Order: sequence, then structure tokens, then C-alpha cells
Amino acid sequence: MTKQGTGRATISEIALEAGVSVPTVSKVLNGHAHVAAETRARVEEIIARRDYARRPARRRKKAGLIDLVFPGLKSEWALEIIEGVERVAQDAGYGTVVSSLSLDGSRIQPWLANMAERKSDGLLMAVYELNAKQIQRIKSLGIPVVLIDPVGQPGPDLMTVGAANWEGAFSAAEHLLALGHRRIGMIGGRPDLQCSSAREDGHLAALRRAGLVMDPELVVPGDFSREAGEAGARKLLELADPPTAIFAGNDEQALGAYRAARKAGLRIPEDLSIIGFDDIPAADWIEPGLTTVRQPVVHMAETAMRALLRYLDGDEELPQRIELGTELVIRGSTAPPAKA
Amino acid sequence: MTKQGTGRATISEIALEAGVSVPTVSKVLNGHAHVAAETRARVEEIIARRDYARRPARRRKKAGLIDLVFPGLKSEWALEIIEGVERVAQDAGYGTVVSSLSLDGSRIQPWLANMAERKSDGLLMAVYELNAKQIQRIKSLGIPVVLIDPVGQPGPDLMTVGAANWEGAFSAAEHLLALGHRRIGMIGGRPDLQCSSAREDGHLAALRRAGLVMDPELVVPGDFSREAGEAGARKLLELADPPTAIFAGNDEQALGAYRAARKAGLRIPEDLSIIGFDDIPAADWIEPGLTTVRQPVVHMAETAMRALLRYLDGDEELPQRIELGTELVIRGSTAPPAKA
Repeated sequence: MTKQGTGRATISEIALEAGVSVPTVSKVLNGHAHVAAETRARVEEIIARRDYARRPARRRKKAGLIDLVFPGLKSEWALEIIEGVERVAQDAGYGTVVSSLSLDGSRIQPWLANMAERKSDGLLMAVYELNAKQIQRIKSLGIPVVLIDPVGQPGPDLMTVGAANWEGAFSAAEHLLALGHRRIGMIGGRPDLQCSSAREDGHLAALRRAGLVMDPELVVPGDFSREAGEAGARKLLELADPPTAIFAGNDEQALGAYRAARKAGLRIPEDLSIIGFDDIPAADWIEPGLTTVRQPVVHMAETAMRALLRYLDGDEELPQRIELGTELVIRGSTAPPAKA
Repeated sequence: MTKQGTGRATISEIALEAGVSVPTVSKVLNGHAHVAAETRARVEEIIARRDYARRPARRRKKAGLIDLVFPGLKSEWALEIIEGVERVAQDAGYGTVVSSLSLDGSRIQPWLANMAERKSDGLLMAVYELNAKQIQRIKSLGIPVVLIDPVGQPGPDLMTVGAANWEGAFSAAEHLLALGHRRIGMIGGRPDLQCSSAREDGHLAALRRAGLVMDPELVVPGDFSREAGEAGARKLLELADPPTAIFAGNDEQALGAYRAARKAGLRIPEDLSIIGFDDIPAADWIEPGLTTVRQPVVHMAETAMRALLRYLDGDEELPQRIELGTELVIRGSTAPPAKA
């Protein structure tokens, strides 16, 4: 790292390098609309490359608001995350601004402009998948950021709160093994997500510890959708030696597996045990109730908001990654295998 | 109404009557903490009695924020309401502050204090049950207010957006009649809610129009919970001449009715048709899928936010009540009755 070009820059250095005025750089940083697209792109590129970040410590007046953003509000968990964040924020005297925001879409500029107008004390990002440039852009907002249940690995620069996926999957497999299952299928998750690998590894680790040799045809790919769950379960059930139990990777896939079982004329749990991961509301509604690994979503959200508050209180010695334990919820979809 | 005591008051009149200073009245209005409880109570009483309301027209600087409050975030619909409001708000350049707020609880003062700190341009209240004093208190905030799907009748002073409950229930009964059912049971909703009466009346109106004489034992009470649905359905199924179809009042009660049917050894829809109201996510997950009356929740939320925006744009000629049409969603839980 040299002082020219790659070190942490000041606003005036960025202005100099971009050949624009300091107020123009300021406008880009604050999301003002009246900057030519080309100028904005050039300034943003330099901001990202020079790792510019306003120091939160310099901020004086509290805005009284924190921002909670989601890539979309259709998620099963959005409400639980809002609930957890809002409770802790309100107790601390902060309002929670909730936004649905695609980081690549056209909504980012109006959102930045709105945030510049009303100010914000901190940012919580839920279930985002961030590339390096986006991470730089977020850091340049100059407010503390915590990621809740991030997709992928955001790198060492941002604080994250998530669930212990490996341990959760391990406990799911242990439950099936304890019931006496020896031929256990698994439907994988979205291959690009870190949590998918962690769940698959946890599952296989439990089987290995039980002394089982894993049959590769018992692990089929998925993508965390109900459709993938149905297709994956069908594939497993059509094997010459089908499994007596399936770890579905997540609850949506488990719902798909229910459908596949019903179409194959199999009763749950008498003929086939199914276990999910997440504990979405449907897990308790369907018949039989779905045995699953509960993610501590509300707790994750509360923990993220508390970390943000500690940071706002001046504590910069925060852990970089917090993993919260899962809980096995046993309902009616798992039972000992039928005698052959 | 005379000018003394009952007409619309100014801040100084209120201060005079309460025997406090104008800044003290101002503090109460803005939710500041440092006002003695007794003084606050006295001032609030006068504010309510004198129907004080700051004029929104006098407000100058846009806060860039609207507030969306819920009595609690556990509701099935909270996420859909947030989704609809947030989309319209973000498009118009407003941030959406989401709060869970019991109007009788201790959280109201910190919330008012936070709102006074950061300001707000308007208030959307979802699924609230308001008494006269609360309505006065809300009006005294001096910002426009729209109620989304209010519980009960908030009176003529506040604008409301809701669903057409009577028409929805009418269409549910018509669907069962068209399938050939003649003995149709109904499980009522919470008796204190206006929507319960509207649904019951709509149901009975359709039966009357079909020339049926309503048997009083075919209408059993409920409270919109799953447990009440199970109990109500059991009661109906234990009648000497049980119904061939049940309108469950809402979807939660329909889920309870599913359980009662299963326990009674009845197949849905072959032995018993069940229809709900709301279209919660579970309606599509359970087997068979639940035929129900869909409330346009996202549309209600969008409509409420648009009304608020029109008001902020200076249009004060807004309708006082907007009712949005429901939609019958036919899934697998309804079929012609079995031949006797």
C-alpha cells in the first residue's frame, strides 16, 4: 500500500483524482440526484477503490432512526426480523425505517436521497448477497452496518449475525439416526449459498460419526424451493433402495417432499420420515406437523440491533461474526422406520 | 356548541384552561418526557375535549418519513401491509417507519418522543381498535392519519380503508349454494368486531336469496382462532342433521374445522366442504388447499398510502371510507355434497 492511489482517501483526494469539486463528491456520497451519471460512476469507482469511509465517530446529532433493508419483503422471515429489530430499536428510542431494496436496481438512488434528507444512525441488512463493490458502497455511507443472516461470505469488513447451520443439520441427522434410520436421503440447497454447504457438511458429519458409509446417490441437488423439494424427494423415492428418511435442506423443500410422498402413496411418518430446517409457520400447520431445525430468527434480529446500539454507544470492539444456536423441534413427521 | 369550552381550541386557549404555559402544552403535544404525569393528564383531557388539531397545512418542511403502526407484528397480514405501504412510499420518496405499538401501553410516550425528534409526515394505523379518546389523541398529532382495516367503527373523523366483508361472505355462500349445498353451517367471528357482523349478514343474505329458511343451530359462535374453529365445527358436526358445508368465518377457524373433520373421520371435500375468509398463506399450503375469500391486503395498504400522499399534496377532498372488493379463490376444499 502506498499513500498515492491505494490508501484510505479523504473527500478532497477523491475530488482531486476524479477531477470534480468536493461538493460533487459529497453529493455522490449523500445520494443527491443532480450529478451526471458518468461523473457519479467515476466518483463511485474511486470511492470504492480508495476504500473511503466517513468516520462514524465524527457524527454528532442522533437521527433517531435506523434503517432495516431487505432485498424483498416476500420472505418468510421478514416479519420476524422486523419484529426483533423493531422491539430493541423502540426500547432504545430509535424508529425503524423498513425498506425493500434491490442493490442493483433503480431504487438505490431514491433511497439514498431519502436517507440523506432524514438521516440514519445505522443500517441493518437482512439476507443480502453482497459483492465487493456493494460492500464498499455501503461502508462509504459512513454509518455502522450489521448483516443479518447474510447470503454467502461478506468478508471480514462487515459484522454479521447468523445461525449455526452446520450444528443444526448435524442435530437433524442425529435425530433420524436415534430413531433407527440408516438409509437417509438429503436434498441440498442453493449451491451458491454458504449455508447450503454448512448444512450438507453437518448432515454428512453426523452420518460419518454413526459409522455409516454415505451413498452418493442419497444426496440430490435442490434450490430451497418447494418445487425442488418435490423433484428431489421423487428422485430419492425412485431409487432401487430408497431412503426411509429425508433431510429436506429447508422447510419449503420439506413441503415439496410431503407432496412427493403423498403422490407415491407413502404415509408420513409411517413409511417415510421427513425433517426440515428453518421452522417456518407452515411447519406447524401442515399435517402431520413438520419436525425441523428452528432458526432463531427473532433472536438473530435482536442481536444484530443490540450490536448496532453498542457500536453507536462507542464500543468498536465488536465480534465480527455471531452465530446463534438452532433448536430441534420434534413434531409428527419423524418416527422409527417401518420394519422391512 | 359555544365558543367557550367546546369549540376547536388554539394552543394558548388550552394552556389557559389547564393553567400551564404554552410551551408545556407544546411538550405534551410533542410527547416530550419532562412533563409531570398529572399535568400531562390534565392537558390531554382538555386537548381531547376541545378537539384540538394542529393544521397539517401549516407544516413546512417535509420529514421524508411516514409512520406505519401495528398493535403487534404477529399478524398474518402485517408483512403484506408493510409491503404495500413501503412500495408506494418509497416510490414517492418517503421512508416507512414501522412500529409495534400498544396505544394503552407504556410505549406510546417513547414513540411520540422519537417521532417529535425525527418528525413524520403522516400516520397509517393497521388493524387498530380505537376508543374516542385515542382518536382525539391521534388527531392532535397534527399529521394526516389513515386507518387500514380498522377493528370496529372509528367514527366519521378518520379516513379508513378496508375490505367489503358483506359482499365477500355473500360470494362464499353463493359458491356453496351453486355446488348444491342446502345445509350450510357458519362459525361466527369475534362478536365485538364489525367485520364479524358483516360476514354473518352477507352469509345469511345469500341463503335467504336462495329461498332457504335459516336454521339457527347452524350458526355457532367463534372468535377467529383456530381453537374456536375446531370447537365450532365439532358442534356443527355433532348435530342430529349436520351440515354438508361450513363457512368458517375466517381462515384460522377453517384450519380448526379441518382438524375437527379429520377427528370425526370425514374427508374434505368428499364428506364436508369448508370455506374460509382472508386467504392467509396456510390456505395454499394445507391439503386440500382451502377455498376462501381473499382480502386484498396489499391493495388495501397501497390504497391507504396513496390516500395519504394525496392528502400531503393538498387534496383534502378525500373519501371517508374506501372498501375494496374481495375475490373468491377456489381450491380443493369445496365440492358438491355427497348424495344422501
